[in-house]
Amino acid sequence: MPPTRDDLARLDAEDPLAPRRADFVLPDGVIYLDGNSLGALPRLTPARLAKVATREWGEGLIRSWNQAGWIDLGRRIAAKIAPLIGARADEVAVADSTSVNLFKLLSAALRMRPGRHAILTQADNFPTDIYIAEGLVGQLGPAYRLQRVAAAEIAAAVDEDTAVVMLTHVDYRTGALHDMAAVTRAAQAKGALMLWDLSHSAGALPVDLGGAGADLAVGCGYKYLNGGPGAPAYLYVAARHHAGFRQPLSGWLGHADPFAFEGGYRPAAGIASAICGTPPILALAALECGIDGFAGVDLGALRAKSMRMGDLFIALVEELCAGQGLTLASPRDAERRGSQVSFRHREGYAVMQALIARGVIGDFRAPDLIRFGFAPLYLRFIDLWDAAEALRDVLASRDYDRPEHRRRAAVT
Amino acid sequence: MPPTRDDLARLDAEDPLAPRRADFVLPDGVIYLDGNSLGALPRLTPARLAKVATREWGEGLIRSWNQAGWIDLGRRIAAKIAPLIGARADEVAVADSTSVNLFKLLSAALRMRPGRHAILTQADNFPTDIYIAEGLVGQLGPAYRLQRVAAAEIAAAVDEDTAVVMLTHVDYRTGALHDMAAVTRAAQAKGALMLWDLSHSAGALPVDLGGAGADLAVGCGYKYLNGGPGAPAYLYVAARHHAGFRQPLSGWLGHADPFAFEGGYRPAAGIASAICGTPPILALAALECGIDGFAGVDLGALRAKSMRMGDLFIALVEELCAGQGLTLASPRDAERRGSQVSFRHREGYAVMQALIARGVIGDFRAPDLIRFGFAPLYLRFIDLWDAAEALRDVLASRDYDRPEHRRRAAVT
Repeated sequence: MPPTRDDLARLDAEDPLAPRRADFVLPDGVIYLDGNSLGALPRLTPARLAKVATREWGEGLIRSWNQAGWIDLGRRIAAKIAPLIGARADEVAVADSTSVNLFKLLSAALRMRPGRHAILTQADNFPTDIYIAEGLVGQLGPAYRLQRVAAAEIAAAVDEDTAVVMLTHVDYRTGALHDMAAVTRAAQAKGALMLWDLSHSAGALPVDLGGAGADLAVGCGYKYLNGGPGAPAYLYVAARHHAGFRQPLSGWLGHADPFAFEGGYRPAAGIASAICGTPPILALAALECGIDGFAGVDLGALRAKSMRMGDLFIALVEELCAGQGLTLASPRDAERRGSQVSFRHREGYAVMQALIARGVIGDFRAPDLIRFGFAPLYLRFIDLWDAAEALRDVLASRDYDRPEHRRRAAVT
Repeated sequence: MPPTRDDLARLDAEDPLAPRRADFVLPDGVIYLDGNSLGALPRLTPARLAKVATREWGEGLIRSWNQAGWIDLGRRIAAKIAPLIGARADEVAVADSTSVNLFKLLSAALRMRPGRHAILTQADNFPTDIYIAEGLVGQLGPAYRLQRVAAAEIAAAVDEDTAVVMLTHVDYRTGALHDMAAVTRAAQAKGALMLWDLSHSAGALPVDLGGAGADLAVGCGYKYLNGGPGAPAYLYVAARHHAGFRQPLSGWLGHADPFAFEGGYRPAAGIASAICGTPPILALAALECGIDGFAGVDLGALRAKSMRMGDLFIALVEELCAGQGLTLASPRDAERRGSQVSFRHREGYAVMQALIARGVIGDFRAPDLIRFGFAPLYLRFIDLWDAAEALRDVLASRDYDRPEHRRRAAVT
């Protein structure tokens, strides 16, 4: 028996995270199941942006680098991200985009493993991760290569030529979750470094880079971390690698003494040498508001709620939409799943457009996936019932056949 | 005879750009001569940020990539920057930081000139430009080199091994202005590409990349363009190079079909392949407000005002501060100077701190330079008189000997 809406309302009443929803602005009439793509707006962000613009920039002008602490803002945020990913504060830096940070770390990894020439990844890893690795390999020349294998073959494919294994912790399409500790061990057993992309996991489930012994990681600020569209990203370098870490995007802020304006680059000690240019203060201020939303949150409770939501949503959809052409694309076992559930449907694109028109916002990934993300900080259990009901109505009414739902937008 | 304050007030009354000052928020009691480091806050920026955060992000959520035009925002801003730098709209992209963009273009330049191995630059070019070139050369290995020569020797130093000449159009310390067309011709005559960093020129003087036949350029959004602290940067690739352009930071947004999530990278046609990751929407919105401040501005009038301000400031300081240990570090000829004037003083750091304490904000660059930038959009001629008078008072009173002015801040 699937749960009733009343059952779900009871879960909300008992949910220790329920009060967190009030920390976010969520529009009326919308059920937002796309926090894994763009997190919702924290209630405090607009006022913070106004203060940074008007008071710090407008009145403080250049003095705010010191007086408003702009120069330390990235470091302060990094220290707040660290506990979300099982890192020490001095192992995390906030800078640039996920893609740029990935380039830095892959470059550094190849330098840290001289004589090895391969970046090993999952064949269907997140596209930008693959594209960046291709760009780096193309730049370095024919001695280097990007090796792409199926997820199940990763561990076996690591060999003496593998410099670094690069994986996304949670698969962006299916939500499948890698066993971070096991894969890291397999990579390191053959002398390779292990690099994790946490973009689809951090903020939705506890990540333990330190416990897993991971070497390197990157992650995104605008999904579960609620930092705003295109928010700055972060990176992680395990402390044991700091002495040997050298990345090629050696901009002034990664210099040992940035304000000496020296004639030659001397990398800063520690994680700071992973930083490149001038930090984007407005964007960082918004990111900090997003990260602050995790203060005091029990990540175990967050994960428990997320797993339960996924299980319930699968049960509801499979009950309400039986026989309507949906196939579960995500692991059924919550332990093996991130905070999203995906289904395949032949008319996936139009189905999602029809759902969005009804105020249930998920997203579509080619060729046929409809994705539903569960941001446990602000999602209610009853939202799952209402979303599944809307999906049932879209499918049963064949609403997705209407031309306005089949028209492709610029961004899907 | 130096001008009187009344003379300067008359210049303000006649200044066709004077009404533009009202477009900016400038704090009372401050004379801001550091717009070459961080431009002032445009009056419209806070409301734009509030709208983007509250309405577009908060209410629109993920839908705003289409409905609020986020996906086109960078392109729209690039098209507005283009006329400020003598480029076509399709030759400019807005993305990342100046340093990251420089890395992209230098990498691309080395690939476009196979068989050549040197990046040639001015020995005392802007530090981050040198650091980035060092990082790239270090990554590519011992076949490649960064060659650093004195400014006067650049043209003569270009040879058959020079892949690209990289220069900052306006020297950040002295304000000395390169002859863009002449240096570009000299570089290209030997088969090298010419790359300009416009960070200290665009928005203060007309730049004509097209007229000069320049190949590549980068520039910063937060100085004269008033885009906010750490604003996104821009880059330029001449249209004739688009077919052969390939840069290694090949993130998803530079893909020919970003939303197809294809398994391999296919560069977008044209300038779009210079883009890497997800655009930072909040920061871009602020940058657009800064760029919009140039709409309808006659760049010739802007340059004329800037040159006149520099000439007047030199005359005033040399008259009012005679015998106080100041030496002009900038070219005396306004045609050979950007929009800043610098003086050397043995106690430069403390002199600038004492000036800032009096509300006259310039900045200091080691070892002994005090810099005064003239942002012609919002600076008044009388500000020059008041600033020179304050400098006179600081020097005559030896105010700079006070311990609070000698204490070094984190950011100088």
